[in-house]
Amino acid sequence: MDVFEAIRTTRAMRRLDPSREVSDEDIRTIVEAATKAGSAGNRQPARWLVVRDAAKRRQLGELYRECVESLLREDQHRTKTDPAIARRLKSTWHLARHLGEAPVLILVCAPGQPYASIFVGVQNLMLAARALGLGTTLTTSHLCNEQKVKALLGIPDDVNTFGLIPVGYPLGRWGDAPRRPVEELAYRDEWGRELR
Amino acid sequence: MDVFEAIRTTRAMRRLDPSREVSDEDIRTIVEAATKAGSAGNRQPARWLVVRDAAKRRQLGELYRECVESLLREDQHRTKTDPAIARRLKSTWHLARHLGEAPVLILVCAPGQPYASIFVGVQNLMLAARALGLGTTLTTSHLCNEQKVKALLGIPDDVNTFGLIPVGYPLGRWGDAPRRPVEELAYRDEWGRELR
Repeated sequence: MDVFEAIRTTRAMRRLDPSREVSDEDIRTIVEAATKAGSAGNRQPARWLVVRDAAKRRQLGELYRECVESLLREDQHRTKTDPAIARRLKSTWHLARHLGEAPVLILVCAPGQPYASIFVGVQNLMLAARALGLGTTLTTSHLCNEQKVKALLGIPDDVNTFGLIPVGYPLGRWGDAPRRPVEELAYRDEWGRELR
Repeated sequence: MDVFEAIRTTRAMRRLDPSREVSDEDIRTIVEAATKAGSAGNRQPARWLVVRDAAKRRQLGELYRECVESLLREDQHRTKTDPAIARRLKSTWHLARHLGEAPVLILVCAPGQPYASIFVGVQNLMLAARALGLGTTLTTSHLCNEQKVKALLGIPDDVNTFGLIPVGYPLGRWGDAPRRPVEELAYRDEWGRELR
């Protein structure tokens, strides 16, 4: 797939097919893509923990749902006023209820807080997945239960978790991601000045 | 360009051709690619400040060099013991001395600290640039002079800067990025367990 098509059509896929298997080879391919990204001093601090075990996925799903429920409770009143937010919240609730059924969950870990080195790799992973027809979404909502997540997977004390990425074949359709025009998000030579 | 080729061959290009112009159209294309990335709640907090003005680039270059000099002074003794680090430091010094001569500098800004939403977009930008034959590297070394950088470009107090990306045609060659094997960076089902 052309890189620009992958960039244009990689969007959060929160409804994944629980019954369609994802091959080990495809998982290796997308994790390898993640590891190709640059990092400060080329130190490659990120570790990619691929969870396939059904019991562990189910437990992760429960820990995740608890966090989303506490996060979203306060947002509920907004769903009635903004249709775009309402749609997104609906798919977020779907993910919260079904995360553990995704065929694969990938947890991104590293010591310290090397954000830049982490998330450039995450984007590589999501683009590579898109090219293979696999849906992903990056979520950080597991963090309210981070200690329990780490205990479940044997993650050392000095290692932090930065994102949880469910992977599977999407139930929804691919299509251009809904984004604002570049003119609203870019400036030229000084803050606020039109890019042209 | 195929997305996997772009992923495999996007690496830090720190030696850029100061005399070869980069078109406005190509810059718009790579910034638009950046804006296609996902973000928390699809809020798209990142702003992409494209600096083409020669005087501003020169001043940014000076502020950048000051930071790199103070950062690297303590690392100098290591250059004699590790050839890979020595090579990288050499190109880092080159960039420090010539950053202001890059045809375009892109500063990534946002209020708050939405790291995930920022750096997934940065990777889109660097991959899109690669596909157009444009070299980039993500650096955060301007941060020791962040207040002066913000003053130079009129960036509001409540907005932070997350990365500085010089863009230009590379003087060096493209090629696979030097990265560790995926087996050293990924685990299966629990920390430390081989991915296979």
